[in-house]
Amino acid sequence: MAIIHRYEYRVRYADTDAGGVVYNANHLRFYEIGRTEMMREHVCSYKDIEDLGILLPVTESYTRYKAPAFYDDLLIIETEVAELKRFSCKFNYRISRDDGEDKPRLLARGYTVHAAITREGKLIRIPENILNGVSKLIDKQQKR
Amino acid sequence: MAIIHRYEYRVRYADTDAGGVVYNANHLRFYEIGRTEMMREHVCSYKDIEDLGILLPVTESYTRYKAPAFYDDLLIIETEVAELKRFSCKFNYRISRDDGEDKPRLLARGYTVHAAITREGKLIRIPENILNGVSKLIDKQQKR
Amino acid sequence: MAIIHRYEYRVRYADTDAGGVVYNANHLRFYEIGRTEMMREHVCSYKDIEDLGILLPVTESYTRYKAPAFYDDLLIIETEVAELKRFSCKFNYRISRDDGEDKPRLLARGYTVHAAITREGKLIRIPENILNGVSKLIDKQQKR
Amino acid sequence: MAIIHRYEYRVRYADTDAGGVVYNANHLRFYEIGRTEMMREHVCSYKDIEDLGILLPVTESYTRYKAPAFYDDLLIIETEVAELKRFSCKFNYRISRDDGEDKPRLLARGYTVHAAITREGKLIRIPENILNGVSKLIDKQQKR
Repeated sequence: MAIIHRYEYRVRYADTDAGGVVYNANHLRFYEIGRTEMMREHVCSYKDIEDLGILLPVTESYTRYKAPAFYDDLLIIETEVAELKRFSCKFNYRISRDDGEDKPRLLARGYTVHAAITREGKLIRIPENILNGVSKLIDKQQKR
Repeated sequence: MAIIHRYEYRVRYADTDAGGVVYNANHLRFYEIGRTEMMREHVCSYKDIEDLGILLPVTESYTRYKAPAFYDDLLIIETEVAELKRFSCKFNYRISRDDGEDKPRLLARGYTVHAAITREGKLIRIPENILNGVSKLIDKQQKR
Repeated sequence: MAIIHRYEYRVRYADTDAGGVVYNANHLRFYEIGRTEMMREHVCSYKDIEDLGILLPVTESYTRYKAPAFYDDLLIIETEVAELKRFSCKFNYRISRDDGEDKPRLLARGYTVHAAITREGKLIRIPENILNGVSKLIDKQQKR
Repeated sequence: MAIIHRYEYRVRYADTDAGGVVYNANHLRFYEIGRTEMMREHVCSYKDIEDLGILLPVTESYTRYKAPAFYDDLLIIETEVAELKRFSCKFNYRISRDDGEDKPRLLARGYTVHAAITREGKLIRIPENILNGVSKLIDKQQKR
C-alpha cells in the first residue's frame, strides 16, 4: 500500500515546548488533520458522518518519534487507510520535512484505530456508502 | 475588593513553547481553572450550572503579561468576582509565583467576562440561587 | 487603516470544547497564525527575527468574542499592524466566517501587544530594517 | 509489577472537544503529569535532570482508549516504570475514574518510551544516581 494523501502543516509556537521542539501530544493533532483532509478529499467530510449521528472516536493511537520537528517547520502529513472493518478502521501516518535531500526526512510515523459509535456510545456499522468510499480509496492506494 | 480564592498549578512541558516560557494562550486556561475552583468552593460547580441548561461562555478576555512563567513553576492562580449582572459576570485573575521574596511575584493579571446563555445560544438570566451565591461571595471579598 | 492580511484556518476537533464551540484560548493561537503569516508575507519571518536574537513575546492580549466558531468552520483570520514603536508593536485581529451573506460574519476581534526583548529578557530596539518593513506595511494599510 | 504512583487530575473544558469528551491527544499530557510527579516523589524532578543537560524526549507512545472521560471528571493517573535501560526507559500508565463501584473504572491505558539525549540531540547514558533511583523504584513496585 502507498500513502495517498499529503497535507502541509506549518509548526507554530503553540505547538512547541520548552525543549525547543514540537510537543509529543501534538502529533495526534497532526493525525486528525491528515485523516480529516484525506476523508474530505476522497470520501466525505467528518461533518457529513457526524450529521448521520455517527462518531469515530480514536480507540488506539501509536507514534514512533524518530527526529524532532522545530518551530516554523513546514511538515508533510501523509495519511493512508490501513484497515477497514464493519465497525472500525485504521489509518497510518507519516510526518516528514523536506530538508532539501532526495526525499523528505521522516520525523515520525504512527497509526490510529477508530470505532464507529452512536452519540449514545453504542457500536454501529459504518454506513454502506462510506464503506464503499473508503474501499475505493484502498483500491487507489494499492494501484500506486 | 480582595482576591478571595487561590489555587496552585504546576507548569508542564505541554504548557510551554520554544521560547522557553509558558505560551500566552495558556493563561486563559489558567483562568478557567481559577474561576471553576472558586465557583466550586464558594457557590456551586460549573457542572451544576450546565445541568440547569445554562452555559457561561467567555465574551471578553484580557491579559497583561508582566513576566514569564517557566517549566515546573508552581503558579498561584488568584480569582475574584469583579462584577455581577443579571445576564453576565466578570472575574479578575492574578498569576504569580513564590520566588522566596516577601510576597509572590506577579507574572500576569487579567479578566474574563461571561454571558449566561441557553444551549440554543439565547441570553438567559442567571438563576436566583446562583446570583445569591455569587453576591455572598462578593460580600466576603469586600470584608477582607 | 484597513486589514491587509487574510489567512484561512480550518477548525479541528482539537480546537473545540465540550460546549460544542472553539475554546476561548484558541483565539490567541489564531492570532499567532495571523501575525506570523502577515509578517512572513510583508516583512520577514519570525524565525529571521529570532535568528537576530530577538524575541517578541506578547505583553498584552484582548479578545471580544461575539459569536461561536464551530467544528470544521473555515475561519478567516485578518491581521493588521495597529501601532509601531521603538520597542513594541501592536496587532489587531478579526476572526470571521463566510456564512454566504454579503460579507463574512464577524465572530471575534482582538489585539496583542508585543515587546522586543533579547533572549536574556532585556528590552531591545526593533532593528531598523524590520521597523522599515513594518512602516511600509502600515503605509500600504492606509492606502487601502 | 504494581502501579506505584497515583495522581488526581480534574478535567477542564480546555481538555474536551465537541464530541463532549476528552480529546485523544490530551492523554499524552496526562502521561507527562503522571511520570513527572512519580519521578519527583521517588527519584528527582525532571528539572534536576534538565539541569544536568539531559533531556528525556518521548520516542514512542501508545494509548488504548477504552471509555470516554468527561468534563469535570476527577481522573486518576497511575504510573509505573516498565523498563529501564542504559539509554532509555519505559513507563506504563492507567487513566481511570472512580464511579462509586468496587474499583475505579479504567478509561485508558498506555505507555511511553524515552531516550536520554544531550541538548545537542546525542544519546547519553542515564546518570548513575538516576539509574539507581529508578531501580529502587522498580524494587518497590515488585514488592507490592
